[in-house]
Amino acid sequence: MTEETRKSSYPLASRAEDGHNTEIKVGNTLIGSSTFTVMAGPCAVESKDQLKSIAERVHESGVNILRGGAYKPRTSPYSFQGLEEEGLGYLGEIARPLGMGVITEIMDARDIPKFVDHVDILQVGARNMQNFTLLKELGKIRKPILLKRGMGSTLEELLGAAEYILKGGNKEVILCERGIRTFETATRATLDLSAVPVLKKMTHLPVIVDPSHAAGRSDIVPALALAACAVGADGIIVEVHDNPSKALCDGSQALSPEVFKTLVSKLKEMSPLVSKQFN
Amino acid sequence: MTEETRKSSYPLASRAEDGHNTEIKVGNTLIGSSTFTVMAGPCAVESKDQLKSIAERVHESGVNILRGGAYKPRTSPYSFQGLEEEGLGYLGEIARPLGMGVITEIMDARDIPKFVDHVDILQVGARNMQNFTLLKELGKIRKPILLKRGMGSTLEELLGAAEYILKGGNKEVILCERGIRTFETATRATLDLSAVPVLKKMTHLPVIVDPSHAAGRSDIVPALALAACAVGADGIIVEVHDNPSKALCDGSQALSPEVFKTLVSKLKEMSPLVSKQFN
Amino acid sequence: MTEETRKSSYPLASRAEDGHNTEIKVGNTLIGSSTFTVMAGPCAVESKDQLKSIAERVHESGVNILRGGAYKPRTSPYSFQGLEEEGLGYLGEIARPLGMGVITEIMDARDIPKFVDHVDILQVGARNMQNFTLLKELGKIRKPILLKRGMGSTLEELLGAAEYILKGGNKEVILCERGIRTFETATRATLDLSAVPVLKKMTHLPVIVDPSHAAGRSDIVPALALAACAVGADGIIVEVHDNPSKALCDGSQALSPEVFKTLVSKLKEMSPLVSKQFN
Amino acid sequence: MTEETRKSSYPLASRAEDGHNTEIKVGNTLIGSSTFTVMAGPCAVESKDQLKSIAERVHESGVNILRGGAYKPRTSPYSFQGLEEEGLGYLGEIARPLGMGVITEIMDARDIPKFVDHVDILQVGARNMQNFTLLKELGKIRKPILLKRGMGSTLEELLGAAEYILKGGNKEVILCERGIRTFETATRATLDLSAVPVLKKMTHLPVIVDPSHAAGRSDIVPALALAACAVGADGIIVEVHDNPSKALCDGSQALSPEVFKTLVSKLKEMSPLVSKQFN
Repeated sequence: MTEETRKSSYPLASRAEDGHNTEIKVGNTLIGSSTFTVMAGPCAVESKDQLKSIAERVHESGVNILRGGAYKPRTSPYSFQGLEEEGLGYLGEIARPLGMGVITEIMDARDIPKFVDHVDILQVGARNMQNFTLLKELGKIRKPILLKRGMGSTLEELLGAAEYILKGGNKEVILCERGIRTFETATRATLDLSAVPVLKKMTHLPVIVDPSHAAGRSDIVPALALAACAVGADGIIVEVHDNPSKALCDGSQALSPEVFKTLVSKLKEMSPLVSKQFN
Repeated sequence: MTEETRKSSYPLASRAEDGHNTEIKVGNTLIGSSTFTVMAGPCAVESKDQLKSIAERVHESGVNILRGGAYKPRTSPYSFQGLEEEGLGYLGEIARPLGMGVITEIMDARDIPKFVDHVDILQVGARNMQNFTLLKELGKIRKPILLKRGMGSTLEELLGAAEYILKGGNKEVILCERGIRTFETATRATLDLSAVPVLKKMTHLPVIVDPSHAAGRSDIVPALALAACAVGADGIIVEVHDNPSKALCDGSQALSPEVFKTLVSKLKEMSPLVSKQFN
Repeated sequence: MTEETRKSSYPLASRAEDGHNTEIKVGNTLIGSSTFTVMAGPCAVESKDQLKSIAERVHESGVNILRGGAYKPRTSPYSFQGLEEEGLGYLGEIARPLGMGVITEIMDARDIPKFVDHVDILQVGARNMQNFTLLKELGKIRKPILLKRGMGSTLEELLGAAEYILKGGNKEVILCERGIRTFETATRATLDLSAVPVLKKMTHLPVIVDPSHAAGRSDIVPALALAACAVGADGIIVEVHDNPSKALCDGSQALSPEVFKTLVSKLKEMSPLVSKQFN
Repeated sequence: MTEETRKSSYPLASRAEDGHNTEIKVGNTLIGSSTFTVMAGPCAVESKDQLKSIAERVHESGVNILRGGAYKPRTSPYSFQGLEEEGLGYLGEIARPLGMGVITEIMDARDIPKFVDHVDILQVGARNMQNFTLLKELGKIRKPILLKRGMGSTLEELLGAAEYILKGGNKEVILCERGIRTFETATRATLDLSAVPVLKKMTHLPVIVDPSHAAGRSDIVPALALAACAVGADGIIVEVHDNPSKALCDGSQALSPEVFKTLVSKLKEMSPLVSKQFN
């Protein structure tokens, strides 16, 4: 694709000549080129107690954005599908008093009104990256959207998907690299960290990394999180669980609160080396 | 994944011990293990005249199911998005008098009522294979669904997606291999013909092949269509255009009506070799 | 890559404007565009008795080229490495009285003299596709070379590798598609059957298919072999073992002599449909 | 593959329970878990002057190991194949007075004697990762070997290949991640940085990263080099050219000496954050 074709495919997402970067404000947290933002929490909201306990631990480590799935996209319809609306409620209820923002995944455009009440960032999962119906509806609201790259999607396609949201008038889109499908089976997906500097050339939108889903195994998540910071990402979204072996979803990739705390302290040291402020 | 886990992930899609195969009736056409079915037509419905002309040509060749996109999922929001409801109308209007069935892609669950009126098979595209919201709604209707494999999706995931529809009570699901993402760039995707016999071991559902989207180039489509028949597919869905160079969508992969006619006559010869009746 | 660059990268391998196809004679067997050739035998030569027994069975089915590994490239140095020179001897000793040609893999250029004595076609395995040292030496001899596509190699690279042999003056190169590495784990590799018609556009060299190594499971090998014929391949190379569960190498992908015989009779029926003579 | 099978496939390469790490001494440079080592120089040795000029620049930046290809594996036999023996001579001649070690690629086992005279680390390229003939010969010498991961090779296969060298008695093997083949075309290969911490769990051997060949474009090489350090690699090997646009090989991925100098100063700052000493 030539430079010209590109810009006509996603003019709003394309980096302009003036080099401007979009920064997105969530509570007191600024997400974008000058900062390194950590979003953390459990894969799924399992109960109010579980969420509260984990939220407090990640908040103590210095994190201001709480993640947690209320609606879970699962390969099989018989796997745990999330607490749904109840889970949404817990997220808001627990994050607010701690002064934390909330990010969680939306799968159905009909749920937008519920999400707008409880959530600060709406996440579109990898499986829905090209669910254009959903993207168009998210273009109509005025809340930040975290758009995850599909596991079989190119960066061109990721930007095309972002354009569907931007075209609707919603200018707050955050891109997220979360691993692509390759032949290597040592990790669940292959985290494509090159995508970060490449996207930074192509677009003004913030780019973050999800090392947990890419790895599918917690032992290498801290190393990947540091690499994400070093490669120039604007943040990470990472799974933390206080009892990984009992997690209802993806326990094998969740960090314990202790390991997470150590990771955060290293990220605080590393951020200034890449000219970013930790937040 | 063990055999046991598999069957608990998609019990309704799994092949049972009795070896039963699902066959789906569309008009006078039976889709499933005893037949080889060809579905053909333009990538997109562009106008009533275009559709009529192509429909007549493919019908003459012996095809009873007309394909044509009314709602088009496009990487960029600025590409031609289809004639939408107008296109749906044309499909029914033109296919009926010819005695043909209609297959077309649905992207938005809210459009289901309109589709039910005009369409015989609702297609879920590769990008929406794991749009579980859409799949659940399609489980509630009683029309055949053609479910395309996502470009980065495994066969396990394809069957998990089919299960979402079957679980809703809609038992008529047709699976479609249409190429997966690999490093090879000589074709747009890599058609995974091994998927056909593998799926036949795993499931009782019909399996068809889309050589047009996999190839992205018309010159090899006839060879791939014959291979699909030889490998045991229950049919193909193929793009035909009477003026490929002027097509509004994917012209480079469309067969001319003449080349298509020759292909169909070869498929008629080949079907009996794999114990199938052409229809 | 433009057409022009291509032709300058592999001028000798490129299809010329006159449409000429290279055909290669091995004993009474002609390999190339007018014929469909089956090469069959065990993965590895395990003993004289084993090879004799299998050779006789495949010969009875109508096959004139015997395959069998004497030198085996194995991922681990502790796996069975083949009978080496002893195995080479058995191949010649057993094939000759049956009037069969022999194909076997060469890994070390220093073994060329031994191969030239016993072998009719020298095979370069997928792992050595870009072992340019070996390719250059094989360019100096006057025996047919079967060049397998690397599991992570493009078709452009396959033709570049063939060019190394052709440039040395050895004009008898047969290309072989044997599956590429992808994310799908239902098969060991993903057989890229599109490669066959694409290569036929690019080059005048014969193109065959190895369904056994691609599949890694015998149950789908017959279907893939038929598909290879339908897609326009000039032949297949397939593994047959009279006791698959006791094979020292890759038993799970070997056909029994009975299944193989049935396959061959279907290939004899299918060849004329694609304008080829079975041999 | 179970832990047990693994250890029997590559017992010498496997990490032992005592957690011992292999460190390899090249001149005054120690390569392994306690250090971060930079190897740099041109893709190909083009002339004595070119090599001298670049060697001096990278040495000034604090680098002690000079890379440069004398024998070049090229997709087409008509591309520049390197200065061969002449290039080998220049490498030794120029590196020695600067006190630098030399690393360069070997393709043909028959060249080993020449390499042993001029070279400190012999590199096996990605295309030859499973050239077992070459690996076995390299197992017989007593010089460090840098073994690059094949573009379509798993980590299991990389360790199996290393085992061929170790089994011969040569204990000094350095592994190198250099990108794998995926569908993404924004970079030449997809750098699999997860491979670094995964390999560190599996083996005691040093692991370095080649960001230049993975990226195929110089603009993202510094970001990837920093990420390699952050993820725990024991070093990088990077291409530097004083006139990238005139390079005879891969100019588009070479860093200018100025950009390289800035990168090295950042790597010096980052190394201590991951408990490594820069050297």
